Amino acid sequence: MENKTEDLGFARLDLDRAARTGIPETVFCPGKTKEQLLAIFEKFSSREISSIGTRCSREQYDFMKDRGLNLTYDSMSLVVRLRCRDNPRSLAGSVAICTGGTADMPVAEEAAQVAEFIGARVNRFYDIGVAGLHRVLSQIDSIRRNDVVICIAGMEGALVSVVAGLVKAPVIAVPVSAGYGASFSGLAPLLAMINSCAEGVSVVNIDNGFGAAVQACRILKIRDNQ
Amino acid sequence: MENKTEDLGFARLDLDRAARTGIPETVFCPGKTKEQLLAIFEKFSSREISSIGTRCSREQYDFMKDRGLNLTYDSMSLVVRLRCRDNPRSLAGSVAICTGGTADMPVAEEAAQVAEFIGARVNRFYDIGVAGLHRVLSQIDSIRRNDVVICIAGMEGALVSVVAGLVKAPVIAVPVSAGYGASFSGLAPLLAMINSCAEGVSVVNIDNGFGAAVQACRILKIRDNQ
Amino acid sequence: MENKTEDLGFARLDLDRAARTGIPETVFCPGKTKEQLLAIFEKFSSREISSIGTRCSREQYDFMKDRGLNLTYDSMSLVVRLRCRDNPRSLAGSVAICTGGTADMPVAEEAAQVAEFIGARVNRFYDIGVAGLHRVLSQIDSIRRNDVVICIAGMEGALVSVVAGLVKAPVIAVPVSAGYGASFSGLAPLLAMINSCAEGVSVVNIDNGFGAAVQACRILKIRDNQ
Amino acid sequence: MENKTEDLGFARLDLDRAARTGIPETVFCPGKTKEQLLAIFEKFSSREISSIGTRCSREQYDFMKDRGLNLTYDSMSLVVRLRCRDNPRSLAGSVAICTGGTADMPVAEEAAQVAEFIGARVNRFYDIGVAGLHRVLSQIDSIRRNDVVICIAGMEGALVSVVAGLVKAPVIAVPVSAGYGASFSGLAPLLAMINSCAEGVSVVNIDNGFGAAVQACRILKIRDNQ
Amino acid sequence: MENKTEDLGFARLDLDRAARTGIPETVFCPGKTKEQLLAIFEKFSSREISSIGTRCSREQYDFMKDRGLNLTYDSMSLVVRLRCRDNPRSLAGSVAICTGGTADMPVAEEAAQVAEFIGARVNRFYDIGVAGLHRVLSQIDSIRRNDVVICIAGMEGALVSVVAGLVKAPVIAVPVSAGYGASFSGLAPLLAMINSCAEGVSVVNIDNGFGAAVQACRILKIRDNQ
Amino acid sequence: MENKTEDLGFARLDLDRAARTGIPETVFCPGKTKEQLLAIFEKFSSREISSIGTRCSREQYDFMKDRGLNLTYDSMSLVVRLRCRDNPRSLAGSVAICTGGTADMPVAEEAAQVAEFIGARVNRFYDIGVAGLHRVLSQIDSIRRNDVVICIAGMEGALVSVVAGLVKAPVIAVPVSAGYGASFSGLAPLLAMINSCAEGVSVVNIDNGFGAAVQACRILKIRDNQ
Amino acid sequence: MENKTEDLGFARLDLDRAARTGIPETVFCPGKTKEQLLAIFEKFSSREISSIGTRCSREQYDFMKDRGLNLTYDSMSLVVRLRCRDNPRSLAGSVAICTGGTADMPVAEEAAQVAEFIGARVNRFYDIGVAGLHRVLSQIDSIRRNDVVICIAGMEGALVSVVAGLVKAPVIAVPVSAGYGASFSGLAPLLAMINSCAEGVSVVNIDNGFGAAVQACRILKIRDNQ
Amino acid sequence: MENKTEDLGFARLDLDRAARTGIPETVFCPGKTKEQLLAIFEKFSSREISSIGTRCSREQYDFMKDRGLNLTYDSMSLVVRLRCRDNPRSLAGSVAICTGGTADMPVAEEAAQVAEFIGARVNRFYDIGVAGLHRVLSQIDSIRRNDVVICIAGMEGALVSVVAGLVKAPVIAVPVSAGYGASFSGLAPLLAMINSCAEGVSVVNIDNGFGAAVQACRILKIRDNQ
Repeated sequence: MENKTEDLGFARLDLDRAARTGIPETVFCPGKTKEQLLAIFEKFSSREISSIGTRCSREQYDFMKDRGLNLTYDSMSLVVRLRCRDNPRSLAGSVAICTGGTADMPVAEEAAQVAEFIGARVNRFYDIGVAGLHRVLSQIDSIRRNDVVICIAGMEGALVSVVAGLVKAPVIAVPVSAGYGASFSGLAPLLAMINSCAEGVSVVNIDNGFGAAVQACRILKIRDNQ
Repeated sequence: MENKTEDLGFARLDLDRAARTGIPETVFCPGKTKEQLLAIFEKFSSREISSIGTRCSREQYDFMKDRGLNLTYDSMSLVVRLRCRDNPRSLAGSVAICTGGTADMPVAEEAAQVAEFIGARVNRFYDIGVAGLHRVLSQIDSIRRNDVVICIAGMEGALVSVVAGLVKAPVIAVPVSAGYGASFSGLAPLLAMINSCAEGVSVVNIDNGFGAAVQACRILKIRDNQ
Repeated sequence: MENKTEDLGFARLDLDRAARTGIPETVFCPGKTKEQLLAIFEKFSSREISSIGTRCSREQYDFMKDRGLNLTYDSMSLVVRLRCRDNPRSLAGSVAICTGGTADMPVAEEAAQVAEFIGARVNRFYDIGVAGLHRVLSQIDSIRRNDVVICIAGMEGALVSVVAGLVKAPVIAVPVSAGYGASFSGLAPLLAMINSCAEGVSVVNIDNGFGAAVQACRILKIRDNQ
Repeated sequence: MENKTEDLGFARLDLDRAARTGIPETVFCPGKTKEQLLAIFEKFSSREISSIGTRCSREQYDFMKDRGLNLTYDSMSLVVRLRCRDNPRSLAGSVAICTGGTADMPVAEEAAQVAEFIGARVNRFYDIGVAGLHRVLSQIDSIRRNDVVICIAGMEGALVSVVAGLVKAPVIAVPVSAGYGASFSGLAPLLAMINSCAEGVSVVNIDNGFGAAVQACRILKIRDNQ
Repeated sequence: MENKTEDLGFARLDLDRAARTGIPETVFCPGKTKEQLLAIFEKFSSREISSIGTRCSREQYDFMKDRGLNLTYDSMSLVVRLRCRDNPRSLAGSVAICTGGTADMPVAEEAAQVAEFIGARVNRFYDIGVAGLHRVLSQIDSIRRNDVVICIAGMEGALVSVVAGLVKAPVIAVPVSAGYGASFSGLAPLLAMINSCAEGVSVVNIDNGFGAAVQACRILKIRDNQ
Repeated sequence: MENKTEDLGFARLDLDRAARTGIPETVFCPGKTKEQLLAIFEKFSSREISSIGTRCSREQYDFMKDRGLNLTYDSMSLVVRLRCRDNPRSLAGSVAICTGGTADMPVAEEAAQVAEFIGARVNRFYDIGVAGLHRVLSQIDSIRRNDVVICIAGMEGALVSVVAGLVKAPVIAVPVSAGYGASFSGLAPLLAMINSCAEGVSVVNIDNGFGAAVQACRILKIRDNQ
Repeated sequence: MENKTEDLGFARLDLDRAARTGIPETVFCPGKTKEQLLAIFEKFSSREISSIGTRCSREQYDFMKDRGLNLTYDSMSLVVRLRCRDNPRSLAGSVAICTGGTADMPVAEEAAQVAEFIGARVNRFYDIGVAGLHRVLSQIDSIRRNDVVICIAGMEGALVSVVAGLVKAPVIAVPVSAGYGASFSGLAPLLAMINSCAEGVSVVNIDNGFGAAVQACRILKIRDNQ
Repeated sequence: MENKTEDLGFARLDLDRAARTGIPETVFCPGKTKEQLLAIFEKFSSREISSIGTRCSREQYDFMKDRGLNLTYDSMSLVVRLRCRDNPRSLAGSVAICTGGTADMPVAEEAAQVAEFIGARVNRFYDIGVAGLHRVLSQIDSIRRNDVVICIAGMEGALVSVVAGLVKAPVIAVPVSAGYGASFSGLAPLLAMINSCAEGVSVVNIDNGFGAAVQACRILKIRDNQ
């Protein structure tokens, strides 16, 4: 394996990842200092590599913005985006992103914006939790028109099982930590989704909208295989 | 409080319970020796008190049967019943018992037979899990005709939330230990049901069909209040 | 199923819920922005639908109040109430709300105010934990006069078992997260209540006074079934 | 939704599932009596619907075989297969199934045989755990030639992260309960896989080779969407 | 510290323990081979040291008995006792042993027989669980006449809190693993007892009747201090 | 049972507790408002009942102090004390309070001050954790001179087992939540202490210095029984 | 990396491991069929590679022995050993293996025999748990004469902290699953050892005597580095 | 054992530790007041004992610095160091410290600075997580040149297994709490590392860079044995 790594001292940027895995470079912002983030995005900027950061705090964003980086920021999803001249090409197919309730929106928007950044078309179906079943049933035909479905829910995550039983597409489930009591910070929907009675469900980490988006895009890309 | 207790040495039969709580005496068989069970049911028999035992092993039943008690036994639910001349009166109203799948039947039958023993009318809706949503939707009008709904499910227990969102009746949820892996012996459906996004759900112990039946009957009995 | 949904973009209000489940619309405030809450309650206000919000922060309340909504707020239970011209009709029967100690009051008041909003009569029995058994025994005759009993307790939640053994009414148990150490944020009373040795107990989520109140009102409403 | 259900009393066969989700009917054998399984497979046989049962015990298989069903059985994976005249068509593309060690083979073969039953081509890469990294590296070019990768591992499941970092395909991870001590019956690899540092991983239940196979086939089928 | 140890190769008998801690030597039988147990009790027998073994299987007992040791055995508590000419002197004071139900008897008898072996007087109050509160109230005056109270219960262990609130004596709580579902093998009563709302409760390991007895006897012995 | 309760609306003061359990009234301050605490202590003050509050915040203390109550406050243990003319009588005997390290001091001082308030003599043995075994061995003779030993430790709590193996007195163990990582807020020392290999150990809740003190005093009081 | 792998179909023997990691090949027997084990050891035998299998059942051993392999077997540790003409050279230095009690012996012997197979000198210090502290103190000088110390204990594992505080050598801790109740199959000693207050402790999996031995030998081998 | 303890009232400094365990005195700063820390370091300073404090807050450091102690402070690792005239001698050999990502740096630097303080040579290999496998492979030859390897990682900690399979040195694994969701504050990497499929791994507490460094140095010191 050739080693295409840029060593920043505190980080080794994996410049080969896009070629190797088909997904552009992204940065997980928590646990990095403002100075570290600035150095990373300046490196991408200087190389004209469009990139994205997730869970970026307002303070981290302001620090980088103030030092001249060409960034956009979404305060609901905490996604920061560096816009360069390169452009990820569009992926064929689309991703449905479904949520159980309003509190799932930050995770859903992280998923949506990451998927769009990678090149997928995204259709949003928000607040269709099964407590009011007609909400999901009225949307199911539209959901079925997508190649991959991401289901994002807290509490008991029942939306996943209902949707997965009604569509042919693979369903990526994202448990959400919002909730209280015996949710135990998302343990309840995680266990529920892993135990879904419906086939065709696989699960990513609690609140991991980013991971669901990448998985959805990897799936869309299998069409590229001849 | 008056003390109406029959002391058998190893057990103090609570002969006042029916008067105090409205529910006839029942016996939880595990952890009792065959000889202890025999002594208990002989006491009830001699006093002509109809009673019921739950989770009674075939061996426990045979031991008592062979010693002349007038018992009937159901090998799926492991419910044993002592038939005496007294008759619990019928309760007004009915209970719907719904299950997600075939593996939930032993728990469902425990619930059904206990509820029937106490005097309730029971309607069974088995194997209507949400992976095939039309199964529950095709039954929902019939389910709605009951005063209380018991929902019994393993895995992620999504049936509970779907049903509770579609009926007006109180829903008693029973998590089931059948399953594997991250079910963790019923922890997953227990947490899921406790976190149900639908209102009107309360939960009893894993596999506790008995407890759900008693709660359903206590609910039916509120009609007796003035 | 007819689809009676009002789509606010971030939320789909389930306007059919009251007709379908018998319980008026309520709003869980955490995880919603102030602007989202304002939009939701303005919608209800414009339609003259009395409604209630739970766990509403002082900041959320002030924001809505300042923008002219006709709200009342209770700082102990964090319940906010929108008063309109419609009036939920009264329910026959009453609910006893019992607590183990003073720290359970916020949860108890959430339950009480939600139940009263739905139309139930509520009788409060606060600070009657079993460490001083005479406190509960001196009240038990009054508790027995209610159709449904809600028991709210932290620590080991023993109050539930004692009360459920002394009344005929169904008991809804609410574990409370207040406590420390091996309470593990309410896991201890949740497990204790789920394992109650007394019959007639079913359990809702930790701190879920709202859910207990809805379940109690669903139970009271079974009298409406002919 | 039209209701295509065959009611056997204890089970409602979901005859619409293949049309709705694209996956033929399968049967989870544990928790069903021998008589129930026989009735289910006889129904499929009489309708000439090829089908498959998972986790079928030798005793369950022998019982059905002895009563004349045209079944084959694999004692490692515990998969039983009913062969009828219908034939699931082949899916385009292939699935790589990788395992960390020999103890993962029963789960891997369940995945392989289910995927083959649905119509996928399967390539097996067994015993390539990362403790001997050259084992996985020597196979990575062959693994890359597949459209979907299933990674099955117990212990800490590190194989998943290594593989997912080296391929473009979506990776479905299956934690395995085999192990001892702090594996806690598969909890350790489940948590590890859910937390994988590599993108493009989603996870199914512990030991759920069946679920991984279905998800892989759902992914292959997106090529059918125009 | 002087070293009074008898080295048997596989075990170092702590012959100084009685002098140091005031409690005679006892043997925990599980995990020891029959031959090891025989060697240990023969050593005690040859030195005329009365001793006791807990959780001794029938097979272990028979093996030793057949080889001529002067043992008695109780098949409910699994306590084996070696009778020698030495006699532990009697302790002043008495211990009340209370249980919630019949399934707690094996643990209770382990506690009772160990306490009696050490020299305490034991009063048994079995099957007085709080679901029938009059059972414990009718006995409370007798319980109060003891110096130490041991409370043994499974399920939610509420008996402990009720008793501890009614007596002045220190209460030793023993959670019991008997139960099912969310008892999680005694985790539920362990957490409940540790969180008891009543003062004066301390807790030993699940099913540890032995440990409760030793603690009770250590407490009785403080009267020996001048 | 006579009902000696003072109803403050939000609380029912259990004025009979001292007579019934031998321990003066104490107040757990968290979860109570400043106004509630003031009302409670004013009631005690007006009746000249010396009392004590635990885990009292500086803000709660200042509020009460400023309104004229005769209180003293210890900022390490967060114990507040109301001094009245009544005086708890002295108990015969003494309590050793041992800690593993400096971080255990707040819990230890809560235990010490509560025990002293009830009337016990307390001897402190702080920072004698087993990592430096000579620290505990050099103190062991002094520790042995006490009637009861309280051992307070975080981390793995090994101090408890070492001490309990060297003394005759009953040992009350208090796990401490201070620590990090796999301490899981005191779960690790709680489990360790419950599993202590030494006899004569019983355990109270994490950080529950108060409970250990009460239990120690209940033990000392058995000398009062004739 | 060169690929020195022998592919047996179900397993890829890592023939390069000894060269790469310094530890001869070993085989974990559970989860492998008798036929698979036979094929593996026959391959080693034909290549004259001495090797060892752990947790080998009597049935697995007999099957291989009966088919002519030159094996020895230890029924306490379940270690099977293939003796060939090659001989692992001796390692300089020695390993002390300490246990808390008799029930730890199977794990201890697994560690001892694996370490001896790799070439280390082993000194055994069994049944020196801290409940009788003089047992460990009387041996501490002998323990100190070793280069590495392995401490094996169940229950609360306090032996580890006491020993690690008294020696200079690195201590490898092995939690043991033997025990009951709140041991939770070794979770309690695992957490305790990970939280040890003594420096110089690192931990391997529950019951993993093998892993401790390998780690000890890796440590001894650092003397080979120049 | 001679007792070399300096009693500061709240702490007993273990002045014999360096002689007994070979590691200089260090101080864990959390849970100690500023005044206590000042007293401890002034004692060391007056005796000219170089020492180190871990997890020292900026506020604690400033307080001591302002009162004249000759301290240096590192704000990433939170290590404070007291420089005196004594000098720990150098240890032969070196320690490799590897991390999976940037968020592991605070723990890694704690390990590095503690190891350097004790006298070891440290080589840093940061941000070489397995998601980009070439990062670790390109460094592996350099890593192999060290006597001990410390691997520090969050998420699923796969780096540990990959490295341990490629080196001969003992590997000390440190799970990191940084992460989110099902990391459960480091539980996931802790379990993963304890279950590592690679031999030669032992584990210390979550985030315990200090403990890993001490263990590495104890290992290096075995060369001092004859």
